[in-house]
Amino acid sequence: MGSGQPVIQSSLTMDEVWDLYRRDLEEIESHIRHNLNAEAPLINEIAAHILEGGGKRIRPLLLSLCYRLTGSIPKNDLVLGSLIEFIHTATLLHDDVLDEAALRRGRPTARRIWGNRASILAGDYLYSRAMHHIAAFKNHEVNDAMALACKRLAEGEILQLCANRQPLLSESEYLRIVEYKTGALLAAACKVGGLMGGVSPLQAEELYQFGLNLGIAFQLADDWLDYTANEKNLGKTLGQDLMQGMVTLPLIHVLPCLPADDQRTLVAKIERNAVEEGDLLQLTAHMHQHGSLGYTRTRSREYIETALLNLATFEDSTAKRALIVVADYMVNRDC
Amino acid sequence: MGSGQPVIQSSLTMDEVWDLYRRDLEEIESHIRHNLNAEAPLINEIAAHILEGGGKRIRPLLLSLCYRLTGSIPKNDLVLGSLIEFIHTATLLHDDVLDEAALRRGRPTARRIWGNRASILAGDYLYSRAMHHIAAFKNHEVNDAMALACKRLAEGEILQLCANRQPLLSESEYLRIVEYKTGALLAAACKVGGLMGGVSPLQAEELYQFGLNLGIAFQLADDWLDYTANEKNLGKTLGQDLMQGMVTLPLIHVLPCLPADDQRTLVAKIERNAVEEGDLLQLTAHMHQHGSLGYTRTRSREYIETALLNLATFEDSTAKRALIVVADYMVNRDC
Repeated sequence: MGSGQPVIQSSLTMDEVWDLYRRDLEEIESHIRHNLNAEAPLINEIAAHILEGGGKRIRPLLLSLCYRLTGSIPKNDLVLGSLIEFIHTATLLHDDVLDEAALRRGRPTARRIWGNRASILAGDYLYSRAMHHIAAFKNHEVNDAMALACKRLAEGEILQLCANRQPLLSESEYLRIVEYKTGALLAAACKVGGLMGGVSPLQAEELYQFGLNLGIAFQLADDWLDYTANEKNLGKTLGQDLMQGMVTLPLIHVLPCLPADDQRTLVAKIERNAVEEGDLLQLTAHMHQHGSLGYTRTRSREYIETALLNLATFEDSTAKRALIVVADYMVNRDC
Repeated sequence: MGSGQPVIQSSLTMDEVWDLYRRDLEEIESHIRHNLNAEAPLINEIAAHILEGGGKRIRPLLLSLCYRLTGSIPKNDLVLGSLIEFIHTATLLHDDVLDEAALRRGRPTARRIWGNRASILAGDYLYSRAMHHIAAFKNHEVNDAMALACKRLAEGEILQLCANRQPLLSESEYLRIVEYKTGALLAAACKVGGLMGGVSPLQAEELYQFGLNLGIAFQLADDWLDYTANEKNLGKTLGQDLMQGMVTLPLIHVLPCLPADDQRTLVAKIERNAVEEGDLLQLTAHMHQHGSLGYTRTRSREYIETALLNLATFEDSTAKRALIVVADYMVNRDC
């Protein structure tokens, strides 16, 4: 069972948020560990490997906080947080196969240990295991929100695949990919949390938008980090996105600013997957010169500001303050 | 809209069944063509390729017939038949990636045309597209039946993966794989059809069992065919299952009948993926000698008989007679 409503705090840090909602998260963690129940031991093994890989459980935390916005106290339905984490994990399993990734958070990926076939199937299982358990709640709005999120996730992934090595992607096309691939599940986590806590239909929609805007802000902050962070902070090399053919906002912004010849050369190199270390250094210099990194950062902050406006309909509470802290953390973090 | 209830026929052939329910199937076909609606054109392209690949639409037909058992006439909810076909298609897309298949029904597989990544994602999309549309029916029993089927499909696939090249698989372990991988979705198609047609909860359960037994019978007939059909009839080479490492009922039956030395040698070859043409010829000779093919055929027929008993609760109607014809067709066919 979840803990009671924590006492209102005047100001909060992210550490305090984790601490205040520790009991909710522990309960969700217990559901994650005990609810896999696959009849094939291999699925449990693969899922445990990736679920214990150090994910921060941001989606379950958001669900729990949105649940508590009305003052409601989560009961057994906090299990929904673990089911959203199952779906998130399913996407990671398929992502690692698609990207032929060897490492995730510094550990070997499931596909490297058990192979692509087992990873695809374990992902399929986690998706459908989650959807089956969600159906048992017999809440049509929850079913709709979760199924829509899964559909958007798949659409976002395939739109991203089609946009791979396509540097002439427009900003709006890119933002749609981000909305689907990153925003949709966070939006569902927030909306479902609110629905279980008994918010109004209008508030549920605001929570959906809150999660969506938060997700876009989070991804844009990630895009910015990819061209600015040092290896130690991010655990990956600078410009890794582009080396994998991923076109992100700083690149979309800087391209039209380049002299026509430079632009043509870079576009051709990206399309041919022939970008080298030297190109990356030159590119990041251009990004600094033309304000592309600042632009990305600003866009990220704008989405966070819009997200916070989506919370205006809710009265002040510790949960609401915690949501604001989480939003800030997600665009200023290394998670 | 579906057609009215056809006039009762005293006896039916499969061709007459296809003909009698042509309008239902045409409507389902129209839903299949027009309901993909993915925002990524690539998904629509991939899905159209495989959906137009000559599948017999057995699952939609079963749904339609079970719907009509009560005398109900399908309305717009016949779209559910197309959604079940989407889920079936999703499994085929993932299957072809898992099996590294080059051909399906004589045409290049999606993975060969568009690659593994696009095939995995198109499969993910079709699953979630179907589940989202199903949720819109706001019928908890339908949601539960469909989500359970998807879960079983994934479990069945992974159990089969684990059983690959494991010739010491027991018959009951094998039957569980068949139940999950082949039976579950047919069972859901029958149950959901019945539910939409307004059957009682007890009848819905009987229809579920009908579909399950039919699915097992169908797979066992397929196992039998794999060791008996000639190339022309089946469009694939004899013993193809074993060459792909798949252990099926005729093999499970014949293994304990072999002299200990032969058994050890064959088991080792299967485990090492080193079975050759000569081994296959010898093996099929053993299967004939020890009645393993007859045993498989008999088991298949027993499941069909049990399936027909599951229909006892329904009054005589053309739909019921058609179901019996379909059941017979499924174990005596080349589909």
